[in-house]
Amino acid sequence: MKNLAIAIHGGAGTILRTSLTPEKEEAYKAALQLALDQAYQLLENGASALDAVEKAVSVLEDSPLFNAGKGSVFTAEGTHEMDASIMDGSNLQAGAVSTVSGIKNPIQLARNVMDKSDHVFLCGKGAEEFAKAVRSKTETNDYFYDQLRYDQWQELKGTDNFQLDHSTTKEQKFGTVGAVALDENGNIAAATSTGGMTNKKFGRVGDSPMIGSGNYANNETCAVSCTGSGEFFIRAVVAYDVSCLMEFKGLSLQEAIKEVIQNRLLKIGGDGGLIAIDRHGNISLEFNTEGMYRGAKNSKGTNEVAIYE
Amino acid sequence: MKNLAIAIHGGAGTILRTSLTPEKEEAYKAALQLALDQAYQLLENGASALDAVEKAVSVLEDSPLFNAGKGSVFTAEGTHEMDASIMDGSNLQAGAVSTVSGIKNPIQLARNVMDKSDHVFLCGKGAEEFAKAVRSKTETNDYFYDQLRYDQWQELKGTDNFQLDHSTTKEQKFGTVGAVALDENGNIAAATSTGGMTNKKFGRVGDSPMIGSGNYANNETCAVSCTGSGEFFIRAVVAYDVSCLMEFKGLSLQEAIKEVIQNRLLKIGGDGGLIAIDRHGNISLEFNTEGMYRGAKNSKGTNEVAIYE
Repeated sequence: MKNLAIAIHGGAGTILRTSLTPEKEEAYKAALQLALDQAYQLLENGASALDAVEKAVSVLEDSPLFNAGKGSVFTAEGTHEMDASIMDGSNLQAGAVSTVSGIKNPIQLARNVMDKSDHVFLCGKGAEEFAKAVRSKTETNDYFYDQLRYDQWQELKGTDNFQLDHSTTKEQKFGTVGAVALDENGNIAAATSTGGMTNKKFGRVGDSPMIGSGNYANNETCAVSCTGSGEFFIRAVVAYDVSCLMEFKGLSLQEAIKEVIQNRLLKIGGDGGLIAIDRHGNISLEFNTEGMYRGAKNSKGTNEVAIYE
Repeated sequence: MKNLAIAIHGGAGTILRTSLTPEKEEAYKAALQLALDQAYQLLENGASALDAVEKAVSVLEDSPLFNAGKGSVFTAEGTHEMDASIMDGSNLQAGAVSTVSGIKNPIQLARNVMDKSDHVFLCGKGAEEFAKAVRSKTETNDYFYDQLRYDQWQELKGTDNFQLDHSTTKEQKFGTVGAVALDENGNIAAATSTGGMTNKKFGRVGDSPMIGSGNYANNETCAVSCTGSGEFFIRAVVAYDVSCLMEFKGLSLQEAIKEVIQNRLLKIGGDGGLIAIDRHGNISLEFNTEGMYRGAKNSKGTNEVAIYE
């Protein structure tokens, strides 16, 4: 029997039961399930873990519910700047883009950086030029418009404040989407995508496009996708920290992610979570917030989505 | 007696003895010595390691000899896009900028991101807006013009080729500058700055501005500044790899950097080197190329600059 697995997240934060209507909750769960199902179907058809995580993240990017792709929050200038990265655990190849606008699926652009350039990380206008060269699908501002995101921005516009889309005073949508997967060849991969922070300025880049911080994959250890307060995830090099605890200290996947999220990240004040997988198909997740949109599906019969702790 | 130390690099690559005239060699050595002396003077006057590495890198940025600041190479568009990052080992605070143009000292801008924003990493036009807000010193294109750099670009212009300024067919200037230091309070810090690759396109970002890859500092382990083929340094998360080998596996600074540069990085095909320091003032460096512009000075009497192996 094939050993296949996929896990996804749609962001972590202070998600309160009281703040989501039953209808909203169902909508989130349906969107998560759709991403799981489409990615898992690929795995069943023999696709690579890389293709599966790209598909799962693309589906989440296409939903207005999550802060990535179509649902990206507004910057201080009223635009949308998106970041994404992808990594192949079988050969440590990686691709990433930051602060790109108008790209329908930033995760697919990151994949193109990996497959069709000699580079790992492309940024801003240059990355958009590359997108033209590889014929990435673009969308106009209308596509990215969302009344709720716009209202969130209006509350912060003109101030020096910004939010990770984590605030309990706002409707609860969270900052990042991501996926990790294991394919039939025993290879693992990770993908992460985000619209950043509402009202963000100055071309701020978080951990999502940073290999080692927000995203990492290595067959020898684990594939990891993070979500949370990006600055802290960068300073703690979170995704690679998990991998190193496994490789150098011999921790299990679950021990490693617990140590990183509940101890090392918290020590410097960082909040958020991550999903992780190893080449045996073990799926683990950890968050130090009140909730994380998430889901997992594998060939051993697991098939679930969840929001609260 | 105070335990003070500073180490610097001006890039690693295939530096052949035959390719540098005695005059050029002396010019490089004088520039390295100037950076060492000015930074060490600060340390002697009680400045922080953070201030010392910022000073050392600023001096190297102001020299036309190195690929950073004034000496930055030309992009495919004939512009200069610079990256830099800085990290404080005492509190894991960090700042970074990527693909900024017209900024005299990108390392000082990275320091401002750390000190005067809530962010770690700012990119492109947004980072330049931030530079205006904090009144960073700017320069026109004339300042960054260098005949040699221009000629290097002309050889590659219009092609899909680029170079890390490593090629043996060209005059030998190398891709990055960096510094690590220990101050009288036992704190360590790291700083790294680069002009990227000649003829680079698409807003390519290397490892230099990436905390964990090209630059990292943590009092508990080490401060590290890297130089080399950036894409490989990103994929191997080189700087944090050194730190993790020390923290989780108990390797010494020298053992850790040798393992990373001569084994783990080489395995995936990466070439380059790094300088590193720990809080006891041990300075170590390692490179798998033919040379690295470098220097070290400490309170135990070391005071040297070198180029070849």
